[in-house]
Amino acid sequence: MAPFLSRRDLQFQLYEVLDTASLPERPRFAEHSREVYDDVLGLAYNVADKYFANHARESDLNEPHIVDGKVKLVPAAAQAMKAFREAGFFSAHADEELGGLGLPNVVAQAMHAHFKAANIGTSSYPFLTIGNANLQRVFASPEQQQKYMLPLLEGRWFGTMALSEPHAGSGLADIRTTATPREDGTYSITGTKMWISAGEHELSENIVHLVLARIRGAPSGVKGISLFIVPRYRVNEDGSVGESNNVVLAGLNHKMGYRGTTNTLLNFGEGGETVGELIGEPGQGLRYMFHMMNGARIGVGMGAVMLGYAGYLASLEYARERRQGRHASNKDPGSEPVAIIEHADVRRLLLRQKSFVEGGLALGLYAAHLEDEIETGPEEVRRETELLLDLLTPVVKSWPSKYSQEALSDAIQVMGGAGYTRDYPVEMYYRDNRLNPIHEGTEGIQGNDLLGRKVSQAGGRGLEVLLERMQADLRASEGLEGLDEIRTALHQAVAQSTGALRAILTQAPELGPDLFLANANSALEMLGHTVIGWMWLRQAIAAARQLPEARGDEADFYRGKLQAARFFATHELPKVKAHADLLASADRTTFDMQAAWF
Amino acid sequence: MAPFLSRRDLQFQLYEVLDTASLPERPRFAEHSREVYDDVLGLAYNVADKYFANHARESDLNEPHIVDGKVKLVPAAAQAMKAFREAGFFSAHADEELGGLGLPNVVAQAMHAHFKAANIGTSSYPFLTIGNANLQRVFASPEQQQKYMLPLLEGRWFGTMALSEPHAGSGLADIRTTATPREDGTYSITGTKMWISAGEHELSENIVHLVLARIRGAPSGVKGISLFIVPRYRVNEDGSVGESNNVVLAGLNHKMGYRGTTNTLLNFGEGGETVGELIGEPGQGLRYMFHMMNGARIGVGMGAVMLGYAGYLASLEYARERRQGRHASNKDPGSEPVAIIEHADVRRLLLRQKSFVEGGLALGLYAAHLEDEIETGPEEVRRETELLLDLLTPVVKSWPSKYSQEALSDAIQVMGGAGYTRDYPVEMYYRDNRLNPIHEGTEGIQGNDLLGRKVSQAGGRGLEVLLERMQADLRASEGLEGLDEIRTALHQAVAQSTGALRAILTQAPELGPDLFLANANSALEMLGHTVIGWMWLRQAIAAARQLPEARGDEADFYRGKLQAARFFATHELPKVKAHADLLASADRTTFDMQAAWF
Repeated sequence: MAPFLSRRDLQFQLYEVLDTASLPERPRFAEHSREVYDDVLGLAYNVADKYFANHARESDLNEPHIVDGKVKLVPAAAQAMKAFREAGFFSAHADEELGGLGLPNVVAQAMHAHFKAANIGTSSYPFLTIGNANLQRVFASPEQQQKYMLPLLEGRWFGTMALSEPHAGSGLADIRTTATPREDGTYSITGTKMWISAGEHELSENIVHLVLARIRGAPSGVKGISLFIVPRYRVNEDGSVGESNNVVLAGLNHKMGYRGTTNTLLNFGEGGETVGELIGEPGQGLRYMFHMMNGARIGVGMGAVMLGYAGYLASLEYARERRQGRHASNKDPGSEPVAIIEHADVRRLLLRQKSFVEGGLALGLYAAHLEDEIETGPEEVRRETELLLDLLTPVVKSWPSKYSQEALSDAIQVMGGAGYTRDYPVEMYYRDNRLNPIHEGTEGIQGNDLLGRKVSQAGGRGLEVLLERMQADLRASEGLEGLDEIRTALHQAVAQSTGALRAILTQAPELGPDLFLANANSALEMLGHTVIGWMWLRQAIAAARQLPEARGDEADFYRGKLQAARFFATHELPKVKAHADLLASADRTTFDMQAAWF
Repeated sequence: MAPFLSRRDLQFQLYEVLDTASLPERPRFAEHSREVYDDVLGLAYNVADKYFANHARESDLNEPHIVDGKVKLVPAAAQAMKAFREAGFFSAHADEELGGLGLPNVVAQAMHAHFKAANIGTSSYPFLTIGNANLQRVFASPEQQQKYMLPLLEGRWFGTMALSEPHAGSGLADIRTTATPREDGTYSITGTKMWISAGEHELSENIVHLVLARIRGAPSGVKGISLFIVPRYRVNEDGSVGESNNVVLAGLNHKMGYRGTTNTLLNFGEGGETVGELIGEPGQGLRYMFHMMNGARIGVGMGAVMLGYAGYLASLEYARERRQGRHASNKDPGSEPVAIIEHADVRRLLLRQKSFVEGGLALGLYAAHLEDEIETGPEEVRRETELLLDLLTPVVKSWPSKYSQEALSDAIQVMGGAGYTRDYPVEMYYRDNRLNPIHEGTEGIQGNDLLGRKVSQAGGRGLEVLLERMQADLRASEGLEGLDEIRTALHQAVAQSTGALRAILTQAPELGPDLFLANANSALEMLGHTVIGWMWLRQAIAAARQLPEARGDEADFYRGKLQAARFFATHELPKVKAHADLLASADRTTFDMQAAWF
């Protein structure tokens, strides 16, 4: 079996591309050291290997189903949760007074990456729980935190986010779930929620749903939406689990992949009252939820990266071992077949995967690094770092979701018929990852968010910051050997992207919002590729600096980084121009199409 | 349920883009008329709808498995075979003296398209059988035809092609299956074949394997490969089915999709002798097999088209019905949500699908039309038509395989979470079609075939013919309303593609065969998109000619064709340049990459 993750690359990203080793110089991380981080990652590897990777296929073949009214998962999932809990991973990111290690975001993200790579389906349960606790930490009252958040951080109770409804998947403005005030200040919740991951299971003592609903009489649209804590079981005064809160499982969704994560249709207030507690102020539900959602979007991007990465490693191992065919120049049929990694087109498929998944990993960890800069970095750049992260979030979510899928298709292709069978994991990763461009905001929503909001937010300051940082790295790359091609290609992509954004923003008033957004997908593609090109320049700089002193495997590692950077520069960055041209021209083709013409 | 196929588009392709209605003017088709063709297609629709579409999902959920040593399929598959047989479809393409209708290839392909769209898995059994019979018709002896081909045309026996072996999937030069001469002129066959579709089942009285093997003492490499007929059951003097021929089922492959087609590992000569008959001359096996293979490659391309098309229709129906969200310009949350087809990004996803699947359908039927031209068209252009079809075959096989997968991904995306579940068929099509870039020659093999062989075959005459025909259509489009954008984009793509091919062919001697072929995939992509752009120009010409007189739905149909042509011109053809530049520059990135650097 191929490893599910490259520990060497993770070290490279954390300590050679990013400056993670310097974080302990900050007061918040004063108790830490690189050794602490490496120990955490080492433990994560072992737990992920032993308790998560072990049942990825088993969960895929035995999707959650209902037995005697209960959702039944494979037993290994419960063992994985126990191991995750005992390792302290539910609270590793939390402050020490909450029982955590206070890990920086970048290390927590790297730690989580192991579980996503090893078993994306089972990893959802803790990550939804952690996201739920993070939201409560910011917006819930101290009493609510005591009652609902602490059990999540202990890993005793699990969490969900319950946004969508059957009639309005992405259309949150139209949700209908209703909250009716009760005399004691709590609310009676009625309605139906769809696509709720981890919405029902027997893995934890209780489930804490974060539910978007309208308080009776609230205005229509997003302004009328509030956020509620709705537990599966009511909680007694002493914090123990009490009677049912009448959240009823109405059905399970049967998915193409990601099968280990049970996905549910839930009825609230059926057969009895469902009681919920309001979080914060009425009408602020969507704002609060987006705090969790932004983290979840980075998490989805990282999940996509790790699925793509695991597929890459599996196909790489296969390509090294499988012998078949000969070079075109070899006309001797009696000679031994070569390992298929020797064929240029197989190398293309592997380099393409490498450039996508390692580029995506660099971006996901960069986003986590920005979170750390916002929380603990120098005060004076915090605001601009926030704007940069806001701008990048749709890219961090959508680019790996899309391009890991391409990478996984390439992984199948490298392995041929074998890759298409259940004898290898790549077909499963391919099915799993296809969810990622859909959930937590579809690709269409990310494109609209990027072009319609983020690029012009705060007078376009986020985009300026992005450009400044890319320019700084372009300058830093000058004089380093072997980087000219990469620098030139990125320089061009940056010029094309900024030119196109300027052009479309200038035309915006005359176009009107609908036509302005008609080619938002091209903006996402164009900026996504440019940002990944930048991530590759950063990796190439780090590799070029290390290469002169490196020997053996280490030198090969850096040469591989440089070649993958070159691949992205020569094979992928030239694709930016077509998207930039389309966007700049405010192309009307999709806008003018009529429903009746299909 | 959405229809699995657009009968209107099929009529458009056959009678408005292609000149199928004039075929009965040729002596071979003198008994035919457009009414005959339409009756055949009408019957195909009914049989496909009633007996194939009915169990596509059932076959997917119940993949073939072994019960008491026999491969068990869902019972509906046997009923489908009976209906297909009773409709006369096993021999519809064959001469009348063989019990057939002598259908033109283009009509036979259109007829087959129905079954591929309705149920790709079950459709494999008859299509492998028909391909097998076609090969025998050309290369087998009259006695062999009598004994083995006639029962295939009657649909009583089924056929396979058995090429691959476990140690050498695509590497046919290395196959080891051995044929030892017996005293009566037949051969004793021993060895193992892998990935044999329809290799074992109880659907037919007998199975006729076409097996590649080496006669003991034959030279190594492809020159030593011969082709044998190897029946599952030996055939008695009177043509009845006799005792077992010791072809032993050693295992079933468990695939991500395409599950209705059982896929087997077969041992020959295990537990008793397996007897086979040589077809034609020794050492000609690969040449004979490629006769079947070329047809099979066009068939794979058409299968990909029809899966993509069925997915497009399913997502189109959903997009018309599902109401969600509002236009960006509408700030009233109390207004009704719109059908999602009204959102520009959904229209983009639908137009993209439409441009891919209707472009692919035009190409698949054009290839079948070329087959008719070769068989029954004017003598003087036969040779050049052959060269053109040879050149296009790798594109016909690989372009729809790749771009229907993109279309199916878009179909899932349009439907969001619903598309990711088994409640709709698109996730199944997506799994089914992922096989198409692999079987009957991987995408890598098609790229090498195109650049390494076909573009320079016969002094590059095939490429010249392609250019002449594209230029003729470019000229024909002049003066027609609304075609300027499409013509300009295609003109540019043609210039870029031909420029790049000229550049790389000029450098070929100094590059050597390995580096010359290193970017073969870009040649395939570049020429593929250009050819599909041409297919769209041809459709646009036909639509522009009809539109002035058309009313109502008919006018909408033609407007849709024109807009899809515009979409391909504005959104897809600009992608040709990046591939052309890479090819022309003989980029060394993948060539220089070393296995140790990964």
